[in-house]
This record gives sequence, C-alpha cells and structure tokens, in this order.
Amino acid sequence: MSSVLISEVGPRDGLQNCKAIMPTAEKKRWIAALAEAGVTEIEIGSFVSPKLLPQMADTGEILDFAVTIPGLTVAVLVPNLKGAERAIAGGAHKITLPMSVSETHSLRNIRRTHDQVIEEATAITELIGQTPEGKRPHFEGSLSTAFGCTLEGPVPDAVILRCAERLMAAGCDEVGLSDTTGYGDPASVKRLIRAVRAVVGAENLTGVHLHNTRGLGLANALAAYEEGITTFDGSLGGLGGCPTAPGASGNVVTEDMVFMFEAMGISTGIDLRKLMATREIVTTALPEEELYGFTPRAGLPLGYKGEPVRAAAAH
Amino acid sequence: MSSVLISEVGPRDGLQNCKAIMPTAEKKRWIAALAEAGVTEIEIGSFVSPKLLPQMADTGEILDFAVTIPGLTVAVLVPNLKGAERAIAGGAHKITLPMSVSETHSLRNIRRTHDQVIEEATAITELIGQTPEGKRPHFEGSLSTAFGCTLEGPVPDAVILRCAERLMAAGCDEVGLSDTTGYGDPASVKRLIRAVRAVVGAENLTGVHLHNTRGLGLANALAAYEEGITTFDGSLGGLGGCPTAPGASGNVVTEDMVFMFEAMGISTGIDLRKLMATREIVTTALPEEELYGFTPRAGLPLGYKGEPVRAAAAH
Repeated sequence: MSSVLISEVGPRDGLQNCKAIMPTAEKKRWIAALAEAGVTEIEIGSFVSPKLLPQMADTGEILDFAVTIPGLTVAVLVPNLKGAERAIAGGAHKITLPMSVSETHSLRNIRRTHDQVIEEATAITELIGQTPEGKRPHFEGSLSTAFGCTLEGPVPDAVILRCAERLMAAGCDEVGLSDTTGYGDPASVKRLIRAVRAVVGAENLTGVHLHNTRGLGLANALAAYEEGITTFDGSLGGLGGCPTAPGASGNVVTEDMVFMFEAMGISTGIDLRKLMATREIVTTALPEEELYGFTPRAGLPLGYKGEPVRAAAAH
Repeated sequence: MSSVLISEVGPRDGLQNCKAIMPTAEKKRWIAALAEAGVTEIEIGSFVSPKLLPQMADTGEILDFAVTIPGLTVAVLVPNLKGAERAIAGGAHKITLPMSVSETHSLRNIRRTHDQVIEEATAITELIGQTPEGKRPHFEGSLSTAFGCTLEGPVPDAVILRCAERLMAAGCDEVGLSDTTGYGDPASVKRLIRAVRAVVGAENLTGVHLHNTRGLGLANALAAYEEGITTFDGSLGGLGGCPTAPGASGNVVTEDMVFMFEAMGISTGIDLRKLMATREIVTTALPEEELYGFTPRAGLPLGYKGEPVRAAAAH
C-alpha cells in the first residue's frame, strides 16, 4: 500500500487569513487534537511582524508547545533570517521560506526582490550551518504564485525554474510548489512538476501546496500524486478563505483530501473521523469563520473502513 | 487540441431535486441560454409520474421547445417504456434508462427488479426499431449507484458487469457509469471504467455522470478523462443537492468542470463567461436554492482566455 504525507497548514495559512484571532489555548488544543488524529506534520505558525499578522503573534508560545508533542514534525513559515532565528531557537523541525516567483507579488507580500529573498535564503543556510547538528531544521524554499499571480497573471516557466535553481544553490534542502492563487489546473500542475524536477532533481521537489479557489484543489492533488509528489498541504475546513476573493475557499480541505487518498487505498495515517471531530474546536473558537468541506457534511460512505456496510432497515 | 462533451443535466437531475418548481417559461429561457453559451447536449427533463416528481411535469412542453434549438442534442431520462414512447414522440435525440446496479436502490427508485429493468430496455429497443430511421434516439443504459449505494454499500463488480452486459444485450447503444451517491474516488473510477469496457467494449462506454457529494467530483472527472472518457455530465451550480445528505452538493458543478478542462487546454466548446451568466436565471427563478461553484465566486484568473493579463495598477 502506498502512502502520502498530509501536512496540515491550517494553524498558519488558515488562521493568518481569518479576521478573528484564535486564542492561544485553543490553538494548542487544536494542534494537539490534530496530532492525536494522526497528523504527523503541522505548520503551526509563522514568525512575522505581529503588526502585520496579529493572528500569528503567539507563534513562539505555540512552537514551544508543539515541539513537546511526540512524533510531530513541527513546521514554521519564516519570511526572513530573523524569523528563521526564532524558529530554530524554538526547535522547529522544518522551516519554509516563501519566494514568490512573481516578483511583483514578492514585493507586495514580503517587500523583497528575488535577489533579496535569495540573500535571506543564503543567510538562513549559514545560520543552519552554525546550529548544532541535532537542532538543524529541514529548510524548504517554497515557490509561491507558481501557477500564476493575481497581480502579474501567468509567470514564465524560465522565471520559475531560475527561482528554483537559486533557492537550491542558496542551500535549501528542497523546493515546494505553491498554487497561492488557485490558478493551477491538472495539466499545469503536471507540467510544472516535471519542469522543476528536471532542474532540481525529483528528490528535491516532493511537496505541493494547493488552493481550492476554483474548486480544482483535489483534481490538482491527484495530478501531483500521479507525478510522484508525496507531501500535500491541506487546511482543515479549507480554513482561511482568500482575502482577495470573498466567498472563495482557500487551501485544499484536509478532510476531503484525506478521504480521497484513503478511498483510493493510499494511506495518510490519519483517522478521518477524529480529524473531522477537530472542526468543533475551530468553529467554537472562531464562530464567524465559514468552514468548507464536503465529506464532513455528507458523512462517510457505507462500507468505508469500519462504517456498517448496510444501512439500517429503516433507512 | 483534444475536446470533451459536457452534457448539462441541471434541468433534469438538478431541478428534480429542488423543492421549488421552476416555471416552464424560465426553464425554456435557461435551456436557450445554455445552448447560446455553447452547451451542445442538455438533459432537459424526465418522463416520470408528475405525482412523484412535479418538477418534471412539463417535460413534454420543454421537449417540444428544446428540439427547436439548432444543433442541440436533446436528452431525456426515461424510467420505462411509457416514458420512452413520449420522449420518442417528442423527438428526443437521446434517451437514458437508469438501471441501479444496487437492486435495493432500483426497487426504491423505480420499483423494478433488475429483470424488470431489462424487460423495459428490451421493449424500448423494440419501440426504437419500429420508429422511422431519422427519428430513432440514441439509447443509453445508465448504471446508477455504480460506485456504491446508500442502502447496500459497495456493489460487487460482478453485479455491475452483469448489468452492463444485459443492457447491451437488450439493445442499448451504450452504457454510462453513474456515481449517484458520490461514493466514487479516482482509483475506483479508473478501475470500473476499465472493467466495464473490458466487457462491453471501449466504444460502448464513453460517458460518466459524477456527483460532488464528498468534493471529489472534479478529481473523479480527471481520472475518467485519463481513462479515455469523453462525455461528462454536469449540473449548473451543482444544482439539486442530495436529498439524503442535507448540505451536501449534488452533481459536479458544470462551471468548475468547464474551467478545469479549458484551463488544461481541452476544448469544451462552451463560453465560460456566458455559462456563468446563466446562473442568474436559476437564482432568480429559484431564490431558495443554494448554487455551488468555486469558479463563479472566485472569478477567472488573470490571463485566462481574453482576461487582461495584468491587473490594473490600482489592484
């Protein structure tokens, strides 16, 4: 039986796009419940300015808590060296530096040109080199807006591939592909995975971060899986939405993605019922937030892993 | 450039699951607008008892109207010979007889055993034989609940394949696969397409009818496309929902499916902007009905077929 790694990014990508701020204690409860449901990698927050993203102001405390959970890979998003310093000091197992392949978006998002992002990557690599061996995090460079940008539109492949090469040259352990804007489709997902892998090597591109903005999230995940991708970011309830497109969902819904892979006989290691039960924590803490997800609404099929095969006679 | 046929089933599968009844004049406006948007096949209704489905009571009048639209393939669902008589008399180009591979569901849905459904199929074939050559409709037998049943759970492949064989032997021009319950996943979709084609021949299974109950509709459509399926049923706005699963969407959303295929460079012949504009007709006529669809909410990507490639400076 094959397997995939589902990386839950709701506590970061989800919560940073919510208007309300989830209380620290509830974040901890949620992260613990996710781990209890079998989620083995969680992006727990990002070290960004609390003025820009007050939702992430408690990332330090959340990190301190998350690293105490046995077996959990704790991931943190860092926009720069300063963030990386905090993440490494806190014991993060994985750090992700986003690099918008659309330079326009990069300037808007983290106020840095491509050259400046590469400088940060180089500095982070040096920092990791100075860190004691057991404390060194896995360092991913994430190619944001890889399938198109809401400011620039499509970004030429040559630009994307150059960013990938430069991130690897700057010392990243791997690159990831992010469909930040939900512009991707199964054909472009497959094409770009092949193109980037041809440049950095298949072993250095193993994960994708897909959004469901136009409903193609799972189709794109399937396409990526068929290309050999093994790590899939998802957000519980598709949490976060998209601030520039009201009513449009954000990340791929973790619950539906887990259902898809498990139904296909591909193990995620996640107990879907327990995973769905954690929605309660989110809806209680953030009652204004709309949670997406079809599987939680429809329920599991009869005969699905332990569900009774036949309905009761009264059905 | 490859292409697919998107068959719009909203006026049948969508409307028959709505509580409110769309007025006949609005149905006509909608069907005309769909055709104007480039939809070349529409399932316009079904000839069933108006007591059971009052939403379909005007199917005769709708059929009379639809066959006047140039270039449109007019499809009608018929549960039995009597329905087929009316459909053929009205000039339908395609008729679909559903056969639930779950016999329990067949008895509930159309009160017939498998043997009785095959008797109807045989009688319909005879009727078609007696019909003047230019008036003979294409006759499809649709394998409903093919990916599992809400009453029986999974249905054994042997039962499904036997149903497919019997429908072809009874004179159907082809069989279709219907995921009535939204139990399918990309792996089961591929597996079952191969299995049925091995029995009836690839040329006799070209279409799938997928639901989005657990959010896998487009992933399943992609899987079917990769297996060589060329006809895909969809419902505008995912109209209809699922009466047994409140809050769960019904058919695959046509708009999102058209977006997926067009973004992949696979032609649907449909103008997506015009298609999305027809939502207005539905929401005006059925204000209580929730319309699904991510693409209509998020809008089209920059650079998508005629969209301006760069956003305005003020973006």
